[in-house]
Amino acid sequence: MTQRGVRRASGRIAIGVDLGGTRIRAAVVSEEGQIRYRLEQPTRVEEGASSVMQRLLSLIRDTISGSPLERHEIIGIGIGSAGQIDPWSGTVLSATPNLPGWGGTPLAEHVREAFDLPVRVDNDANVAAWGEKQFGAGLGVDHLICITIGTGIGGGVIVNGQLYHGAVGVAGEIGHLTVNLDGPPCNCGSFGCLEAYAAGPAIVARALEAVMEGTKTALIQMTDNRPEDITVPLIAQAAAEGDPLASRVMQQTGYYIGVGLAGLVNVLNPERIVIGGGVAQAGDSLLQPIEMTVRARAMPVATEALQVVPARLGEDAGVIGAAALLF
Amino acid sequence: MTQRGVRRASGRIAIGVDLGGTRIRAAVVSEEGQIRYRLEQPTRVEEGASSVMQRLLSLIRDTISGSPLERHEIIGIGIGSAGQIDPWSGTVLSATPNLPGWGGTPLAEHVREAFDLPVRVDNDANVAAWGEKQFGAGLGVDHLICITIGTGIGGGVIVNGQLYHGAVGVAGEIGHLTVNLDGPPCNCGSFGCLEAYAAGPAIVARALEAVMEGTKTALIQMTDNRPEDITVPLIAQAAAEGDPLASRVMQQTGYYIGVGLAGLVNVLNPERIVIGGGVAQAGDSLLQPIEMTVRARAMPVATEALQVVPARLGEDAGVIGAAALLF
Repeated sequence: MTQRGVRRASGRIAIGVDLGGTRIRAAVVSEEGQIRYRLEQPTRVEEGASSVMQRLLSLIRDTISGSPLERHEIIGIGIGSAGQIDPWSGTVLSATPNLPGWGGTPLAEHVREAFDLPVRVDNDANVAAWGEKQFGAGLGVDHLICITIGTGIGGGVIVNGQLYHGAVGVAGEIGHLTVNLDGPPCNCGSFGCLEAYAAGPAIVARALEAVMEGTKTALIQMTDNRPEDITVPLIAQAAAEGDPLASRVMQQTGYYIGVGLAGLVNVLNPERIVIGGGVAQAGDSLLQPIEMTVRARAMPVATEALQVVPARLGEDAGVIGAAALLF
Repeated sequence: MTQRGVRRASGRIAIGVDLGGTRIRAAVVSEEGQIRYRLEQPTRVEEGASSVMQRLLSLIRDTISGSPLERHEIIGIGIGSAGQIDPWSGTVLSATPNLPGWGGTPLAEHVREAFDLPVRVDNDANVAAWGEKQFGAGLGVDHLICITIGTGIGGGVIVNGQLYHGAVGVAGEIGHLTVNLDGPPCNCGSFGCLEAYAAGPAIVARALEAVMEGTKTALIQMTDNRPEDITVPLIAQAAAEGDPLASRVMQQTGYYIGVGLAGLVNVLNPERIVIGGGVAQAGDSLLQPIEMTVRARAMPVATEALQVVPARLGEDAGVIGAAALLF
C-alpha cells in the first residue's frame, strides 16, 4: 500500500537530511512535502569528522534501502547542515562550535560520489526556512523571514520567493543582529547580539536567576527542587501553563526577539515572519510579546500587512526543507 | 556640439528628478549615467503639497525644454522622492516629516498625465543606491548595501543585482535598525535606532556637548566662536583636517554606523557597502571606524571578501539613479 502510494502521489521523491550537532536525521520526502520514511542517528561529533561522514553516508544508504522506494525514483539528496555553508559548491565554510573539524569539508561532493545523485547542501536554518516556505507557515509568501530559536538563533530570509544567500552564501544569521551595542558577549565574538539575549542559554540563565532570588514558580516542582535541571522546554511548558515566572521570562525573551526583528522589518519589509525552534513551543507567551514589540518599534507602513506566525513543520522543517532544495 | 553629443552617445535619455524636503533637482541623464543638463528649485514645502507639485511639474518641463534634446528622445521620467513610496504604483505612502501633506499622492500618475511619458518613482535613498550600483561605487556588484547619512539615515539594498523593495515597497530603512534597545528616542517612534545615534542632529549634538565642556577645537574659530552654528559639513571638514575633537566625533559616529551595519552584514552578507551622504565627506575619519567596527563585530566568513567604500556620485546620485530606473 505505502509503496504504491508513494508511486502514485508524485513522480518526484527526494532524500532530506538534517545534520546537527546532536542528531542526524534523514527522510524520504515526496514532492508534496510528505515524509514517507525516516531514520535518525546520533551525530557523535566527539568521534571526529570522518566518522561523522561515514555515519551520515550509511544513514542515507539505510534510508534509501529501508524505504518503499526504487532507487531510480529518487531525484536527489538535500542536506541542511549546521555551520556556514557555500550553497553553490555544497562546501562547509565553518562549522564551529557545532561540528568541530568540518570546516572545509566538500560535503556535497562526498555525498554525490557515494550515491551518484544530485546533491544540494545549505545551512540548517536556511533549509528550515525553505521547508516552511514550501510546505509550512510560509506557503505562498514571497517576502519572508524565518527565525529559529534553539541553543542558538538561526534564520533564513526569503526574497522574491527564493532563499537569499548573499555574496558568499552565508546570509540569514539573524541571531547576530545587534540589539545592544554594549550588551553581553556573544558566541560569535561580538557583543549584544540577539542570540546573547534570546537563545536557550540566556533564557535558562534568566529563569535560574529569578529562582535563585526566591521567586515562586512551578519550575521548582517540575525539576524536583533541582533548579540546575531547568531547561528551555520546561520553561516553555510552564509558561504555556500560566506559571508567572516562566511567562515573564518568555515575555522578556519575546521582547528581545521583537527588538531585533523590528529593525529587520524596517530593512527588509517582509510580508510574514515565521517563528520556529524549540522555544516557540511556549506558544502565545512568546509569540505575543514578539508581535507586540515588532508592531511598537517598526515603522507603521512596514507592519500594516505584516503577519507574525508560529512555524508549522516543527522538527521536520529540516528534512522537509532539505528535500525541497531538489524540487 | 552638445546637442550632437547627446544624440550620438546613446539612443536612450531619461529625466531624473530628486525630490527632497529642501530642494527639487532635475537632470537630463544619458544611458551612460552622464548628466547633460540640469536645473533645480527650492521645494518650499511650507506652501503646501499642490504648490510643490506645480513646481515639480514646471521644473521637469523647463528641464526638457531647456536641454539640447528633442522630446522624442526621452524614454521616461524617474523620480526619487523623500518618504516611503510604493514603487509599483509610484504613490507616496507616507512622507512626514520631509514632505508634509504628500502621503497618498499618486506622484507617478500626476507626472505621467502631465508629460505622457513612462514614469517610475522610488524612495530617494533607494534611488541613490541604484545610481551608485549602475554608475558609481557599486558598479558590477550584485549584493550591495548603500547607506546615506544626512539629516536622517536612509539606505538601499541591492539583492541579486536588483533594488530590493520587500512586500509593500518600503524596504531599505537601514537608519531604523536598532543599535541599542534602551537608546534615545528616534524620529520614527522607536528607541535606539542607528539614526538616533549617527545622523546629522546626533553628530552636531555630540560636537556641541564637547565644545560646551571646554574641549579645544578648530570648530570654535570656524564658527567665529558661535558653537550654535556648528554643522555636520563643518565637523566633517574639521575632521578631514585633523581636528582632534571633530575626529573623535566622527570616529564615534563611525562606530555606531559600524555596529548597525555589522548586524546587517550577518543577515545579508553583502559583497560591498557604499557609504554616502553629506557626512561621508569626512572621509577616512568616518570610513575607517565604520570598516574597523564592521570587521570586528560581523562574522569573519561574511567579512572576508567584503569591501567598505565611499559613494562616488555625491549629490548627483539622486538624479542619476532616478533616471536609471528607466534604463
